[in-house]
Amino acid sequence: MGGTESLGDIAMRIAIIGGSGKEGQGLAVGWARAGQDIIIGSRALERAIQAAEKVNQAAGRPVAKGMLNREAAGAGEIVVLTVPYDAHQATLREIQPGVRGKILVDVTVPIDPEKPRRLRVPSGGSATEEAQALLGPETRVVAAFQNISHTHPGQGDGLDCDVLVCGDDADARQEVIRLAGLLGLRGLDVGPARNARVVEGLTVLLMEINRRYKSRGAGIRITGLPEQ
Amino acid sequence: MGGTESLGDIAMRIAIIGGSGKEGQGLAVGWARAGQDIIIGSRALERAIQAAEKVNQAAGRPVAKGMLNREAAGAGEIVVLTVPYDAHQATLREIQPGVRGKILVDVTVPIDPEKPRRLRVPSGGSATEEAQALLGPETRVVAAFQNISHTHPGQGDGLDCDVLVCGDDADARQEVIRLAGLLGLRGLDVGPARNARVVEGLTVLLMEINRRYKSRGAGIRITGLPEQ
Repeated sequence: MGGTESLGDIAMRIAIIGGSGKEGQGLAVGWARAGQDIIIGSRALERAIQAAEKVNQAAGRPVAKGMLNREAAGAGEIVVLTVPYDAHQATLREIQPGVRGKILVDVTVPIDPEKPRRLRVPSGGSATEEAQALLGPETRVVAAFQNISHTHPGQGDGLDCDVLVCGDDADARQEVIRLAGLLGLRGLDVGPARNARVVEGLTVLLMEINRRYKSRGAGIRITGLPEQ
Repeated sequence: MGGTESLGDIAMRIAIIGGSGKEGQGLAVGWARAGQDIIIGSRALERAIQAAEKVNQAAGRPVAKGMLNREAAGAGEIVVLTVPYDAHQATLREIQPGVRGKILVDVTVPIDPEKPRRLRVPSGGSATEEAQALLGPETRVVAAFQNISHTHPGQGDGLDCDVLVCGDDADARQEVIRLAGLLGLRGLDVGPARNARVVEGLTVLLMEINRRYKSRGAGIRITGLPEQ
């Protein structure tokens, strides 16, 4: 016990930016039920407060607060970004002062709202790499949770999917793997931020599969690993 | 029964270009055991003949022949390309006359031999899109089987992974899904050739996972689909 390892047993204050949306709500409820403190950030304070109230009801305890995005980022010990790609850059600029020195978990998928099933490759390679470039080295950006967004991680245990975790800082990846574990999900370290190109693109593939196979919550599992 | 559906029950002549390599051998043995006729293509006739002999031994019947790549492509009813990315363009030019009017199954992953774990995005987006652009509309290119290359599809049943199949022709994708089924693998239609950017990139992620988790044959499964 010592150093960052000891965080494993302590409730953290997790700020979820864009947390009034469906993905943010699902993650918030999951972590609230796992005993974490939650801050819901939104562009409108009223929506943030309402969304936090829903999390409190789902968790059965008053663990969530609503704030404006910028304040929420400042108040969180770890910050999770769940906004549409079209709001990605603007939101990053807004929360930049608040995430300095912290881990930013980027859940963004670069989807074109006009053509959601068409794979879009952003100029920076991936949303994650764009976030890291914009925020600079003082914030450690980790990509995760993109591929479970449609299956409501907070809505129950036993979700049959893995969380692929990538980013340029190995300790930050481990911390996010721990956050996945709090949701009952297996997080897997898939290396540097550059690999977010594949992880983000997988979401588009899963949407394609959902449409073709009339499923709603297609996910992925990595097979062939030794028992852990 | 009629049209392409009836092919389901007939042995096909499958040409495997670069078929003396590990991936090609695995696929060849799998399809040979499933009753298909195999042509192994290689740059050297001697290697092609030796590799075909190994397939015959594994299958227990003389179902495989060795030929030079160009002849093999002409002789196959369906052509499977398993060469390193650095030989991709040159091999495509060589087999172009032979694959006219046929399906080309491209198993290529754009890996840099110097840095095999570094995700490489080719100028054409993906190896598959590059192949389709080079061969033109007379050949229907389908990407598949990239993610099972390290797990030797011919070496036994019960492989725990899916085959993601993409390409711009829907009928061709269905035909390749059928070929996956002959190997005992579930093929899934993941849409247009553009999505090969993700499918090819997944191989690099699986290599990263193999290294980090000391596994040899990490694969992927799509979960959450309705029972079929």
